[in-house]
Amino acid sequence: MNDATPYQREDNRTPDQLRPITFQQGFAPHALGSVLTSFGNTRVICAANIQERVPGWMKYQGVPGGWLTAEYSMLPYSTLDRKDRDISRGKQDGRSIEIQRLIGRALRAVVDLKALGPRTLWIDCDVLQADGGTRTASITGACVAAAIAIEKLMAEGKLKKNPMTKLVSAVSCGVVKDTPLLDLMYVEDRDASVDFNVVMTEDLEFVELQGSGEEATFSGTQLTDMLELGKHGVKTITQLQRDAIAAARQPTDPDALDDLAKHFGKN
Amino acid sequence: MNDATPYQREDNRTPDQLRPITFQQGFAPHALGSVLTSFGNTRVICAANIQERVPGWMKYQGVPGGWLTAEYSMLPYSTLDRKDRDISRGKQDGRSIEIQRLIGRALRAVVDLKALGPRTLWIDCDVLQADGGTRTASITGACVAAAIAIEKLMAEGKLKKNPMTKLVSAVSCGVVKDTPLLDLMYVEDRDASVDFNVVMTEDLEFVELQGSGEEATFSGTQLTDMLELGKHGVKTITQLQRDAIAAARQPTDPDALDDLAKHFGKN
Amino acid sequence: MNDATPYQREDNRTPDQLRPITFQQGFAPHALGSVLTSFGNTRVICAANIQERVPGWMKYQGVPGGWLTAEYSMLPYSTLDRKDRDISRGKQDGRSIEIQRLIGRALRAVVDLKALGPRTLWIDCDVLQADGGTRTASITGACVAAAIAIEKLMAEGKLKKNPMTKLVSAVSCGVVKDTPLLDLMYVEDRDASVDFNVVMTEDLEFVELQGSGEEATFSGTQLTDMLELGKHGVKTITQLQRDAIAAARQPTDPDALDDLAKHFGKN
Amino acid sequence: MNDATPYQREDNRTPDQLRPITFQQGFAPHALGSVLTSFGNTRVICAANIQERVPGWMKYQGVPGGWLTAEYSMLPYSTLDRKDRDISRGKQDGRSIEIQRLIGRALRAVVDLKALGPRTLWIDCDVLQADGGTRTASITGACVAAAIAIEKLMAEGKLKKNPMTKLVSAVSCGVVKDTPLLDLMYVEDRDASVDFNVVMTEDLEFVELQGSGEEATFSGTQLTDMLELGKHGVKTITQLQRDAIAAARQPTDPDALDDLAKHFGKN
Amino acid sequence: MNDATPYQREDNRTPDQLRPITFQQGFAPHALGSVLTSFGNTRVICAANIQERVPGWMKYQGVPGGWLTAEYSMLPYSTLDRKDRDISRGKQDGRSIEIQRLIGRALRAVVDLKALGPRTLWIDCDVLQADGGTRTASITGACVAAAIAIEKLMAEGKLKKNPMTKLVSAVSCGVVKDTPLLDLMYVEDRDASVDFNVVMTEDLEFVELQGSGEEATFSGTQLTDMLELGKHGVKTITQLQRDAIAAARQPTDPDALDDLAKHFGKN
Amino acid sequence: MNDATPYQREDNRTPDQLRPITFQQGFAPHALGSVLTSFGNTRVICAANIQERVPGWMKYQGVPGGWLTAEYSMLPYSTLDRKDRDISRGKQDGRSIEIQRLIGRALRAVVDLKALGPRTLWIDCDVLQADGGTRTASITGACVAAAIAIEKLMAEGKLKKNPMTKLVSAVSCGVVKDTPLLDLMYVEDRDASVDFNVVMTEDLEFVELQGSGEEATFSGTQLTDMLELGKHGVKTITQLQRDAIAAARQPTDPDALDDLAKHFGKN
Repeated sequence: MNDATPYQREDNRTPDQLRPITFQQGFAPHALGSVLTSFGNTRVICAANIQERVPGWMKYQGVPGGWLTAEYSMLPYSTLDRKDRDISRGKQDGRSIEIQRLIGRALRAVVDLKALGPRTLWIDCDVLQADGGTRTASITGACVAAAIAIEKLMAEGKLKKNPMTKLVSAVSCGVVKDTPLLDLMYVEDRDASVDFNVVMTEDLEFVELQGSGEEATFSGTQLTDMLELGKHGVKTITQLQRDAIAAARQPTDPDALDDLAKHFGKN
Repeated sequence: MNDATPYQREDNRTPDQLRPITFQQGFAPHALGSVLTSFGNTRVICAANIQERVPGWMKYQGVPGGWLTAEYSMLPYSTLDRKDRDISRGKQDGRSIEIQRLIGRALRAVVDLKALGPRTLWIDCDVLQADGGTRTASITGACVAAAIAIEKLMAEGKLKKNPMTKLVSAVSCGVVKDTPLLDLMYVEDRDASVDFNVVMTEDLEFVELQGSGEEATFSGTQLTDMLELGKHGVKTITQLQRDAIAAARQPTDPDALDDLAKHFGKN
Repeated sequence: MNDATPYQREDNRTPDQLRPITFQQGFAPHALGSVLTSFGNTRVICAANIQERVPGWMKYQGVPGGWLTAEYSMLPYSTLDRKDRDISRGKQDGRSIEIQRLIGRALRAVVDLKALGPRTLWIDCDVLQADGGTRTASITGACVAAAIAIEKLMAEGKLKKNPMTKLVSAVSCGVVKDTPLLDLMYVEDRDASVDFNVVMTEDLEFVELQGSGEEATFSGTQLTDMLELGKHGVKTITQLQRDAIAAARQPTDPDALDDLAKHFGKN
Repeated sequence: MNDATPYQREDNRTPDQLRPITFQQGFAPHALGSVLTSFGNTRVICAANIQERVPGWMKYQGVPGGWLTAEYSMLPYSTLDRKDRDISRGKQDGRSIEIQRLIGRALRAVVDLKALGPRTLWIDCDVLQADGGTRTASITGACVAAAIAIEKLMAEGKLKKNPMTKLVSAVSCGVVKDTPLLDLMYVEDRDASVDFNVVMTEDLEFVELQGSGEEATFSGTQLTDMLELGKHGVKTITQLQRDAIAAARQPTDPDALDDLAKHFGKN
Repeated sequence: MNDATPYQREDNRTPDQLRPITFQQGFAPHALGSVLTSFGNTRVICAANIQERVPGWMKYQGVPGGWLTAEYSMLPYSTLDRKDRDISRGKQDGRSIEIQRLIGRALRAVVDLKALGPRTLWIDCDVLQADGGTRTASITGACVAAAIAIEKLMAEGKLKKNPMTKLVSAVSCGVVKDTPLLDLMYVEDRDASVDFNVVMTEDLEFVELQGSGEEATFSGTQLTDMLELGKHGVKTITQLQRDAIAAARQPTDPDALDDLAKHFGKN
Repeated sequence: MNDATPYQREDNRTPDQLRPITFQQGFAPHALGSVLTSFGNTRVICAANIQERVPGWMKYQGVPGGWLTAEYSMLPYSTLDRKDRDISRGKQDGRSIEIQRLIGRALRAVVDLKALGPRTLWIDCDVLQADGGTRTASITGACVAAAIAIEKLMAEGKLKKNPMTKLVSAVSCGVVKDTPLLDLMYVEDRDASVDFNVVMTEDLEFVELQGSGEEATFSGTQLTDMLELGKHGVKTITQLQRDAIAAARQPTDPDALDDLAKHFGKN
């Protein structure tokens, strides 16, 4: 990397190291597929559900196939200062709208809507604890939840062909004190001069790339560093997603649930 | 009870038996106090937070002391058919408004608002899984979360005197096929001809009593049966609340978290 | 009752005495059925109307029969300090939502929705003057208005069988300075330590029971006293409802209208 | 008038004859001033209240004196087909907004806002029964209610000088089958090719004039006819307003209330 | 006119002189018909579009033919102090609602909705610069935009008969320092004691007439003066409308666009 | 570029050629700074205004300096099918929210908010005609409008130091039929497999980078091509921005306005 004395991360990670990432399966048992996705202390409830109808505009315009829509919200107690609910303020938070649109686009990039048939796949991401990277954790966990839900639909014989063509995942990168870092936690995000979100498929094609100088600017070199870090992170994350989806196929293993217990034990 | 061949409950409980009740502490780590409250498969995230100011109307009217306000919501994946978010429909669900007003009144009955000082105690209850009795589980868990939050405030020296004067808890009762039952799960609630919610303090005084013939009627005898069952349930629940609050005073015990793992293992 | 020197009521009623109750028929002449319901100085316009269609969700879910829905509102000049309209604040008052849901449940308990046929019975309750007990006056008057409207539908041949199976009425009770009182007016309600609303059918079965310690608590003895008072009140009120419904069957008698004149003459 | 065989009015009035106009005083006893204004079967509750503060924009811009604001609404049962409440549709009816702005302008034309002092005079007009001319009945009744309220403020010593400089009233006119008519009832209004609303002071100066060809056109001659009729109507109405305001100064006379009883007796 | 030393207008116009009026064709090229309408420094974008369906209520009530609806808005930078957008305040401005209802009525008076067929003609008026008389400029320009759009529909063979039966235009008049003035600009409007809006057809029939004493009053003589001025203005405006509609039939003449350049050159 | 037979653009541009770009100064004369920004047939009204106060949250949190906020909207007639206004649908379009947040961040990256002083710089972007690239045209034009407004503030002595540190501009790129293209118009955008928006400063540092596979994916090579094209475009655009800002310093030259006339002449 580009600095003699790299930035010392609070949790002692190397600049290109991810936080511990886990997917706790079956977290919202009434959902068709659900995981509690953790990137360190960032925890997002990701749920996938099927509705056996399509939005009005598809019927009206005669668009064939199905639809996938995503909703993102921060629970009021997910932040250190309590965050008002959208409904109390009467309208949805602009940032949440931006994020849920991103989640929807990312998932639609890897789901064949025609193969889904005339149904809607609902993705819900609710942040239980926010410590940086909630949008990338949401995309990553939403993919796992959707994959689990789709496998259930296939097992029920409702789908013949798996409409999910690839896995998609996402990770944040940024530059803090001239050091490019992977998977920023909140204090790093707050101090970053560049903020990147990389969304990629399992074969390392880009799905979406969002880089912002956070009301400052960044250079081409920094961009190259970010992309390298992002690609590196996605490789690892993809494998964790695969493991989680495979685990969900097994009868629930109580031992696997120790992960969850351990997380809460840390707080 | 009043029937020769009493109603056989799906989960083999006796008519006056509660479901397994647990309070998983620290579930929303950014909240001052939080528990995942479970009454069987009904799971509600209960969080308590402090805001160092009071509502505008209190300032305007010169009311001294603090305030306690509650918000209740069902997460979209808490029900078997996905439930639209309030913000998508543009207004809050009438049932949710009714419930959050009840939670607020119940907690205010046991919190001395003057002793709280010029601050607001926010109670948030979000249903993660709904299987009957979400409002009573919310009140019960909210009391535990609030007690934990208040103890933290006292430990920080922000409060001299504990403003929570008593514990409050709640339980549902109902009559199904002429059998009075305690702590109804969803299928029982759906079939009940009478639906009761009993909110009581730890010394078995009533805080709130809501009985509804569910668009039918009920008799004085049924009322007496309901009250008896409710009182019986509250006695047990109060002790579980005390244990949970005491446990939260200890350094977190990883073993205690196995409860949570076990719950999810069942699904 | 339970006290040597019982509470002296401002209007000199005995503790178990109702205020003068009247139902002024035809108050909103464009409604199918309407009454101005007065419990002393509490006056509520209650109207019943028929719409020859059912809500969208009934069609969608294929539910047979009809529907009954209630709306409750306080007119801005019904209180001593002018109350802002809901539309000015952009959302309905939480208390009003709670009350209109209660009115709807109470009426549906005595109306056979299947016998109503594929139509909606709209109940509107608008408070013209608030002096305590507006929700119980609303339920009581709504039943009279609905009964009148249904009789007109039957006279027009639109209904073969009367879908209203029983009369329903409601009354408030409370404990003021340790004295259990029936039918509280505003100053009594404000000072009450317990607040009860009893909704019963004409044969004295319970439809709904709501008791609240008003952010304090109440005992089982107080509960028993409240129920006794409530039952006592409902007996009288039921008879007044019957008279009002019978009177509405007669060609309008100008003398009967003197009641109204007398009321306004008192102010 | 301009036609050999003039239009025969359903209620046998001559073309330039007003419907019976009454102002039932004290209709909403908690308001400072209130009347039930009737123009035939059109009945509007008009209430005037004082709030001891001014709107935020006046404080912000440093405008001296007080403010007068009007709100208009049709009660759901005022029309033959039940009208949805504004709050159910989520926004106020465009027609209602237009009318309440007109009422506010009309009243402000005759109230000296500086003399009112730093307070807001709220005018509320709620239509109880609609049979044409609700906006003109509202203005006319609002003036009476405001005058009564202001006289009470003066009697309480809160105002030294009467801020209402003149009486204001309004009446509708229209052309039906080539016959210019005064004070149209609903069926006439529906069939009118021209629709006029004339707002004038007691000394017959214009305050507001609104004429509409109702999606057709009208001629200068028709305009002249309308103005003549309007002026004729206002003369009579002004005297009735004076009588009502004077009557409100007297201790309530029960006999005067017979008017109200008689109205309801007709339905 | 009625004064020895008439009011000297800031732009040296005579009391009965219009400001320069232009209609810049094709201003919003994606609209079927569009003009930038200028009355001096008041500039309004007027656009007409066709939607091949009718509103829900027409289908529901079985009303034959088409519909015409108008929307009016002031762009945030049209006023000297930036005006908040409606969507930021969460509801539409009352004044805008009043104006767009007037525009709709005015246009419907000259459009045969049955001849329009089952389609909706949308009129949009957005004020780019406000200097008095935006509502009358909107009506006047909307008529031109609608005429152009309708001629395109006829050229495309979608309409056999022109549904616009006549031209409609509008102009404001007012009394400033006792001088009746035509076509008031902002400073005149602000100082006017009477404010009139006259909407007339090309054959000088009235469509709508709105006169307001602006919270004061006006006399019959002033009314007569206003009508005279309005009629005078409409005659001239009608001819300019005809020219603009005729010009729109020609292949665009670049020279004609110099008008627009000249306007902006003045600022 | 990467293809033997490159994609033939409808308007005959080479793949790396911009559309004609113009900034018509003074388009909204009441704004402090305004331009009609055209990228070919995409036309956006960009206006900058100053409000001499800061948002509530800045006061509340004690943040020094000023603020810059942006609003973006598509006028209803900017698209080939009329687009409903936000206020008609009751909430702002998600896409518009996303875009206006981007515009705000882009401008804040080059404006020193502390140097702005305790005031808000409002940026309004309203699309008059949409033909692809409205968000990048908005950012580009907003920078010009803001620069003009700031120069006026400086000329008035309200600012000592220019708070705009650099120019910022933006351009879209995309891949259509394997050909990387600069500045896509609508039909190209619709067919693109990759969609990029590049926001850069005049010294070619990145401010924001947004790339989307449009519900598909893209490769690292395509990313490199996009960035190259974007940089190329920004170089040219920056010079045009400088010229426009310089021209606005001159007394208006009527000849310069011919550009506008010519544009409209093309339609």
